[in-house]
Amino acid sequence: MPTLCKPAVRVPEYVITLEETLELAERAHAGKPQLPLALRLIRNTGVRKRHLIQPVELALAHPGFEERNRLFEAEARKRCPAVIEEALANAALAARDIDAIIFVSCTGFTMPSPIAWLINNLGFRYTTRQIPIAQLGCAAGGAAINRAHDFCKAYPDSNVLIVSCELCSLCYQPDDDGIGSLLSDGLFGDAVAAAVVRGNGGFGVALERNASYIIPDTESWISYAVRSTGFHFQLDRRVPGTMEPLAPVLRELALDHGWDVGDLDFYIIHAGGPRILADLSRFLGVDNRMFRHSWATLTEYGNIASAVVFDALRRLFDEGGMTPGATGVIAGFGPGITAEMSVGRWSNDTPTGLDRAAEAIGAAR
Amino acid sequence: MPTLCKPAVRVPEYVITLEETLELAERAHAGKPQLPLALRLIRNTGVRKRHLIQPVELALAHPGFEERNRLFEAEARKRCPAVIEEALANAALAARDIDAIIFVSCTGFTMPSPIAWLINNLGFRYTTRQIPIAQLGCAAGGAAINRAHDFCKAYPDSNVLIVSCELCSLCYQPDDDGIGSLLSDGLFGDAVAAAVVRGNGGFGVALERNASYIIPDTESWISYAVRSTGFHFQLDRRVPGTMEPLAPVLRELALDHGWDVGDLDFYIIHAGGPRILADLSRFLGVDNRMFRHSWATLTEYGNIASAVVFDALRRLFDEGGMTPGATGVIAGFGPGITAEMSVGRWSNDTPTGLDRAAEAIGAAR
Repeated sequence: MPTLCKPAVRVPEYVITLEETLELAERAHAGKPQLPLALRLIRNTGVRKRHLIQPVELALAHPGFEERNRLFEAEARKRCPAVIEEALANAALAARDIDAIIFVSCTGFTMPSPIAWLINNLGFRYTTRQIPIAQLGCAAGGAAINRAHDFCKAYPDSNVLIVSCELCSLCYQPDDDGIGSLLSDGLFGDAVAAAVVRGNGGFGVALERNASYIIPDTESWISYAVRSTGFHFQLDRRVPGTMEPLAPVLRELALDHGWDVGDLDFYIIHAGGPRILADLSRFLGVDNRMFRHSWATLTEYGNIASAVVFDALRRLFDEGGMTPGATGVIAGFGPGITAEMSVGRWSNDTPTGLDRAAEAIGAAR
Repeated sequence: MPTLCKPAVRVPEYVITLEETLELAERAHAGKPQLPLALRLIRNTGVRKRHLIQPVELALAHPGFEERNRLFEAEARKRCPAVIEEALANAALAARDIDAIIFVSCTGFTMPSPIAWLINNLGFRYTTRQIPIAQLGCAAGGAAINRAHDFCKAYPDSNVLIVSCELCSLCYQPDDDGIGSLLSDGLFGDAVAAAVVRGNGGFGVALERNASYIIPDTESWISYAVRSTGFHFQLDRRVPGTMEPLAPVLRELALDHGWDVGDLDFYIIHAGGPRILADLSRFLGVDNRMFRHSWATLTEYGNIASAVVFDALRRLFDEGGMTPGATGVIAGFGPGITAEMSVGRWSNDTPTGLDRAAEAIGAAR
């Protein structure tokens, strides 16, 4: 059974608090009509602090799209190796054991994708499959888990490394007064994450079934305007209400698996914003506390796009994990409006001595 | 056995000949030091004509990255439905039978990817898996076939639609005197293609084994400079020589399958340029005539990026196809330097009456 092992997550060293974000907004929008809206949006995010790859003054001084992409590439090379190494150790694997790399990011664009550099520099086999995904936004975390699951289903002895590199501050657009940008500048944070899906063995979430769903005719609700200044986040006011149509889809996925979605043992949910988490727990009939890992990610890191589900799962591991057989769901949401969902069971499948040693190393970090 | 059915390919209505390209280059680079190089590069492409989505004068009058992406989206919506409909008919399937859509393009960037629009407008199920790939360049055609193969291996009753939308003229950079852009403006053409990989049944190439390979430390040899003006194609002078290291990799893939790569019945090869095709046939010890479908694509359409392999395969079908059991290889090459390869057998696996009807419809078009 393909098993999603403990993710590794790192956030950068520059911190900005809610109070600092509010102060910055007051200055940036002083005397402009959008000021009250910007402040309300920022206060409502529920984000206490975020981590950035550079001081916020620099993040908000747009140096041009070319420079931002240069920075994306440099920072990805600087920050991904550590989470990859840790994720491999968590899975008790070496780089040469990996058969496919899924690299997801919607905050920088390069061709070739960063996977080519990773293969050349971190000891992966030259035959490693490259699956770069840039266009699924925040849903790409769930999508990466699902595609890794599928790959291991096709090749049961294989192992897939997922890397999520979301440097959201490289998409802040200080001169854009659209509601998407106003929100983006106060909601999104930077993070890099990695996790391995092992086709055999491993300790974590045994992935049993996955599904994808797009809410009809909502493709314009979350989108990028792609301009000479880069990616401008655009958000429709109806997005926070999308958990009402998505809750039944999650319910059906669980039902197809013989489970009651309101009665699972763990919930790893994309923390798009506070309304997403509050609504979904309500519509699923689940105590809000069951979403505590996602709430913690949102509060402490902000919306870190496709990396949220990996950070929420990491927190569940850090809390001590679950007993084997515990049932759960993982769900990412993003543009489309797309939901990428999976159900599975906590598993400690045939851990080898090497597995245990790696767990110990992982825990000691 | 997952079977790649007959692709559908369309090229746009605006045609530019080699002679016109040379004239344009003479005017554009008049009196500049790069003129002789530009003319030599263009003459050496082996491209007799290319098809563009707009008159070349418009393609060369850069309207800005934002407008180009707007145009990409509009043209993709206009041109993809016809090839998709035809590819579905070729596979004797309807949109509702498709379980995953792989959309590959390196010539425009949107979020969400065009898959969301396709699902909403062409009758695909809302549960269709979305696999958009933008960062594999010309290798993405081979990659799409391989990932579709993998998906059908994981879910044997499923069907995957591949769409390749390469509007390369939206990446012409008339003010860029780099060798990549000089070549790009004279080599690349526009095309849209689609093909279905059926998990069961179907008529075409039964996909038996696939592989990926990256030539060590060549990640900078083919790349995009991502600028405020969009994607600038950058090419290292060593790229035309890459078939020497890749031929043994193809040989090994065939050997792993018990086959001699020099003795297959058909070869569907990415037509990156004339040297790629000439070298590869030489290194594989294969008569150049065996690559005639790829040569025809290059000569008549130019390098149409990830769509080349689909057009070359379409030409093999149009030629009458092969007898069942005939052995062949499909190979795409692109940035990385990456090769995405597969081997398979011509198959007419259990065609149903419906299959035959669709074949007849396909043939009548």
